[in-house]
Amino acid sequence: MVLEGRLEDSGSQSIHYGSNVSSHNPCYFSSYGDLKVHELMLKDKVRTEFYKNVIFSNKEIFQDKIVMDVGTGTGILSIFCAQAGAKKVYAIERSEIAKLAADIVKENNLTDVIEVIQEQVENVVLPCKVDVLISEWMGFYLLHEGMLDSIIAARDTHLKEGGKMFPYKCIIYSAPCQLPGYFQLWDDFQGVKMSTLGQALRKGCQGEPQITRIASSDLLSDGKEVAILDLYRTTCDELNKISVRQFVAVSKRGDYQGICLWFTVEFPSAEGKENMVLSTSPMSPKTHWKQTVIVLPVHVEVEENDPVAWELVLERNSMNHRMYNIHLTMLDPETETHPMPCDCSFMKCKVIKAFLAQQGSEEDTMEEIIDCTTTDDND
Amino acid sequence: MVLEGRLEDSGSQSIHYGSNVSSHNPCYFSSYGDLKVHELMLKDKVRTEFYKNVIFSNKEIFQDKIVMDVGTGTGILSIFCAQAGAKKVYAIERSEIAKLAADIVKENNLTDVIEVIQEQVENVVLPCKVDVLISEWMGFYLLHEGMLDSIIAARDTHLKEGGKMFPYKCIIYSAPCQLPGYFQLWDDFQGVKMSTLGQALRKGCQGEPQITRIASSDLLSDGKEVAILDLYRTTCDELNKISVRQFVAVSKRGDYQGICLWFTVEFPSAEGKENMVLSTSPMSPKTHWKQTVIVLPVHVEVEENDPVAWELVLERNSMNHRMYNIHLTMLDPETETHPMPCDCSFMKCKVIKAFLAQQGSEEDTMEEIIDCTTTDDND
Repeated sequence: MVLEGRLEDSGSQSIHYGSNVSSHNPCYFSSYGDLKVHELMLKDKVRTEFYKNVIFSNKEIFQDKIVMDVGTGTGILSIFCAQAGAKKVYAIERSEIAKLAADIVKENNLTDVIEVIQEQVENVVLPCKVDVLISEWMGFYLLHEGMLDSIIAARDTHLKEGGKMFPYKCIIYSAPCQLPGYFQLWDDFQGVKMSTLGQALRKGCQGEPQITRIASSDLLSDGKEVAILDLYRTTCDELNKISVRQFVAVSKRGDYQGICLWFTVEFPSAEGKENMVLSTSPMSPKTHWKQTVIVLPVHVEVEENDPVAWELVLERNSMNHRMYNIHLTMLDPETETHPMPCDCSFMKCKVIKAFLAQQGSEEDTMEEIIDCTTTDDND
Repeated sequence: MVLEGRLEDSGSQSIHYGSNVSSHNPCYFSSYGDLKVHELMLKDKVRTEFYKNVIFSNKEIFQDKIVMDVGTGTGILSIFCAQAGAKKVYAIERSEIAKLAADIVKENNLTDVIEVIQEQVENVVLPCKVDVLISEWMGFYLLHEGMLDSIIAARDTHLKEGGKMFPYKCIIYSAPCQLPGYFQLWDDFQGVKMSTLGQALRKGCQGEPQITRIASSDLLSDGKEVAILDLYRTTCDELNKISVRQFVAVSKRGDYQGICLWFTVEFPSAEGKENMVLSTSPMSPKTHWKQTVIVLPVHVEVEENDPVAWELVLERNSMNHRMYNIHLTMLDPETETHPMPCDCSFMKCKVIKAFLAQQGSEEDTMEEIIDCTTTDDND
């Protein structure tokens, strides 16, 4: 039995250590937990090394440029930019961690390049516009935490015409998945029937999306695009509600138990180089973002090529603008109107897709087809 | 960047699924988090399989006996006992999880053997005394959560003279350890100097014991016994304050950065069989208890055979009787009076130990030596 509460509330510790304890007592954080979150993110090797690589591989973009790092945290991205040759880096951080960032900048002898500004980015005033806007603002399923609004605000106020955004393009994906080890294992657990527990756990999952890791072998289709955001153009209003209806053909036999969400972010590149993409997909190396799963209340056995369909709505929480509610509605692919073109395995959709592929997908051909099929769909 | 709050507070989810959603809505838990704690414990394979094995390997003890399972949770230990042949099992659980346990008992057709009682064990009244008291009550560093008091109360009220306790003997151990990957890695992290962060993290660690996994190779001595509790005899008062002064010889060169705590619990056995011991030591397979580490404010480089010494006090929190404060005081082995006999590498201690080994350690020899050495120590 472990306790229900958090250890910090209870199992306190004190150490007596004579005169060796440092008297230096900077207040870097409102709680130790905040600092541990930064430690977790830094130690996410995929994340930290990706940013390091994308900056160092594109030094031409940073060389002698003015950079803004939004939500700098411990300051590491600002330091990478300075190391890559930036002339000036404005490192913006509203929390007390800014003081730690400033000390780390000092430790790296970069005070003449990096200016840490403890302020919300919306209130920051700079003497000039910046060439590059960099940030690691992504939350679970990309949008959780709603920090993207601050990036958009920073872009509109501070980014030069033609300046670069790191990252500049985001795609949210979804796919049906199975969840072995979530519920069925309780049907016979160490020789005890605990299906009741499995059902209770599943019921508990209905209230909140699960942040968990999905094996790529548990995906039941490729990822379908929920949203593509071009950060050079996206507005905050567009983020209020993202809604999509998705139809897929299941790629293999399995237990359809949830919808798995993940995201990718793409970074600009210097002339002649390929853009680099950071992916949080189940097929990619593990990150602290894991995947986000909306668990279905019942599981559905599916066969290869079965069509499945759902509507997914990501909508801002009316009480807290930075938070999202996720609504999933299961659709019956038999009765719903499919999009055009559609990836599912229904004969009609397959025929249309094949036809489009033959014709090339010029827009007028496309519209012609829609004209002659929409009546069909309502039969 | 991930958010600071908990996802449950924010990223809500809702699912629309037509008529397939079960209308069955038992209230098993006050929060989904509580249920997840039980899931975590059940999925701790070492823990769950150990209990299963200790019960099934000692069926003679359970056969046709009356058993009490204190804090039954999901009821799994009660079911193991019933499967091992118990005539009657009283499964005590004060929380709402008791309702889930009752349903799981039903699911296993054991309602005629297992009686789930939703009540604090201190208030339970039974028609008879029990032959066996079983429980998985252990918290971090054994005592965290203070559930042992309830076991002692259950023993005094409900256990038959000569009845068995599972477990019946607990030992808390401590050893000096190093913590690579805790602080020094920040001195050069991805090419950035972040010692400031390392210092801030270390400072944060001073406020609370760390629940973490220590590699056995990072222990700097064998485990020394902090406390040995014989649960047939222990009183609650004895648990109010556990205090020990420990002296060890470091087993290898290293960075002395913390004191690592763990525990073992021993179970009685049927005639002719060996007692079984569940260990949460760094040398044993991983459990959800991990180890508990008291992090020192500074690290000390030590060489093989260096003597190190400390005083450890585990004391109940005056505000919350179920919680403990841990006090660690570093001692200077040069100036402190060593215990008798002592495992450290000081010449005097080694000589005394060797002498005692020669003499056998009869109590009178021991007292003689103490008589003639205590004056020595005060020189």
